[in-house]
Amino acid sequence: MEKKKRIVIALGGNALGNTLPEQMTAVKITARAIVDLIEEGCEVVVAHGNGPQVGMINNAMAALSREDEKQPNTPLSVCVAMSQAYIGYDLQNALREELYNRSIFNIPVATMITQIRVDADDPAFLSPSKPIGHFMTEEQARIAEKKYDYVMKEDSGRGWRRVVASPKPAEIIEIGAIRSLVESGQLVIACGGGGIPVTKQGNHLKGASAVIDKDFASCLLAEELNADFLIILTAVEKVAINFGKSNETWLEDLPVKKAEQYMEEGHFAPGSMLPKVQAAVKFASSGEGRTALITLLEKAKDGILGKTGTRIHQ
Amino acid sequence: MEKKKRIVIALGGNALGNTLPEQMTAVKITARAIVDLIEEGCEVVVAHGNGPQVGMINNAMAALSREDEKQPNTPLSVCVAMSQAYIGYDLQNALREELYNRSIFNIPVATMITQIRVDADDPAFLSPSKPIGHFMTEEQARIAEKKYDYVMKEDSGRGWRRVVASPKPAEIIEIGAIRSLVESGQLVIACGGGGIPVTKQGNHLKGASAVIDKDFASCLLAEELNADFLIILTAVEKVAINFGKSNETWLEDLPVKKAEQYMEEGHFAPGSMLPKVQAAVKFASSGEGRTALITLLEKAKDGILGKTGTRIHQ
Repeated sequence: MEKKKRIVIALGGNALGNTLPEQMTAVKITARAIVDLIEEGCEVVVAHGNGPQVGMINNAMAALSREDEKQPNTPLSVCVAMSQAYIGYDLQNALREELYNRSIFNIPVATMITQIRVDADDPAFLSPSKPIGHFMTEEQARIAEKKYDYVMKEDSGRGWRRVVASPKPAEIIEIGAIRSLVESGQLVIACGGGGIPVTKQGNHLKGASAVIDKDFASCLLAEELNADFLIILTAVEKVAINFGKSNETWLEDLPVKKAEQYMEEGHFAPGSMLPKVQAAVKFASSGEGRTALITLLEKAKDGILGKTGTRIHQ
Repeated sequence: MEKKKRIVIALGGNALGNTLPEQMTAVKITARAIVDLIEEGCEVVVAHGNGPQVGMINNAMAALSREDEKQPNTPLSVCVAMSQAYIGYDLQNALREELYNRSIFNIPVATMITQIRVDADDPAFLSPSKPIGHFMTEEQARIAEKKYDYVMKEDSGRGWRRVVASPKPAEIIEIGAIRSLVESGQLVIACGGGGIPVTKQGNHLKGASAVIDKDFASCLLAEELNADFLIILTAVEKVAINFGKSNETWLEDLPVKKAEQYMEEGHFAPGSMLPKVQAAVKFASSGEGRTALITLLEKAKDGILGKTGTRIHQ
């Protein structure tokens, strides 16, 4: 029997919806695409973002501490942890149901609470850039700065938002547990929201006020699990150069060297396609036979079969 | 080498504190007691309650939906899931740190999101009895009844509270994943808050508006893992008959038959010591050589060594 292809798939937090009813619809669509891969004979590990969800949970915990003075504000790391359960619980049930609906009864699904170590001296801590949570007036923003030590920024004339650091993932604390489960045949959901960011202080792991980019976290997870494929899902079927221009060209086969050249030439938007291509290049460069695929959720299976998407490889 | 004694330990949610700072102190004390057991050569699996925590999360999500009409009220099952991460994240780090402080580097710690199936026709659903969340006025209670379909009850003149069903646990959905991790040498935190209660509807698992008693959930976990000991922690060192009376007698060795007799005679308070003794009797009756121990957290090690606590056995 041919060895199963091991795939790490990185789902976008935005694609999982802004409310619980939206999430319950989104996870069904997601589950179909993932079980398609399993039916193709792949072994799948699922990672996901949490942008809207961690913002929502952060807002809920802040609303609670306004109503109940005994409840202090909840650190962002704890909100990330809660978002892993908030999403994982729904997602694992949708996956289980889709597997059962297709008479696949031998692949249990499990969600692991996952912490990822970041370096306390990661330069990202000096320039928080990732907006989370809701919009505020300038007056509310100034209060939040003083009361919670938040960094607040005006966002394109739409109001003020909290911005947090997005440091690079350095080490998945629970990688041993994830590996055990994957190797025992479980469909594992891990590194939710990019993982709970922690720094090491001696034997202590201290939650960091940050969110880790889920594509970089998924890349590290794929490397550590010695995956064959890293699938990074996005809102377009393929990556383009000269995107939106008359000479726009969609890419299918993209060797690492070429991808690096295009990145240098500024073809990919920072904060959008660029980090995806960076994560894809990092994974493809990390070992023989490792391929990254950037495509739409509903094209993941066709992408694995070589029919569409952008494949980044050595 | 003698086979390690496998222990499932059931921590009380109340003992984990009402706020995050309280929790961060409580988990340190808890971690010391658990690592004491590990140093005695035991293999430990940790389950815990979530009374104050799920109430707090439920309040936070309700506060959010009052502020943001796009956010509907969050089902209790989702709040239980979030409480597993809220507690598990802190608890697993305190355990890791205590292990490292004692130079035990070969036991990783992992938190599993755990669902437990309950029967949709469990009679507990017909008489919700467990109060959760904060106190309300009668007017607020009537609104909550209409708006969220809550069952509200007046609580001893202190105001109105939501009451939920507390059905019996029937099946741990993620038992395979928990077993894999335990057998690969992980220190596992599972069945948090008594597990996320779900009912089976065909292939679908539907969250139930309920909370499962953590002692019964821990009993099921201990049975499924073929544990040698179930340790149920409580606020007293030993179980007593004629508790608070002049002929009060503390029990050390308590055979199942004797425990059943005392239960029939009404020695143990419902909602307090009674369910603990029931869970202990259930575990001890479930197989040869299975012992339940009821004692204080800080006496857990002495209890395992036979020095204190109440030991329930066949």
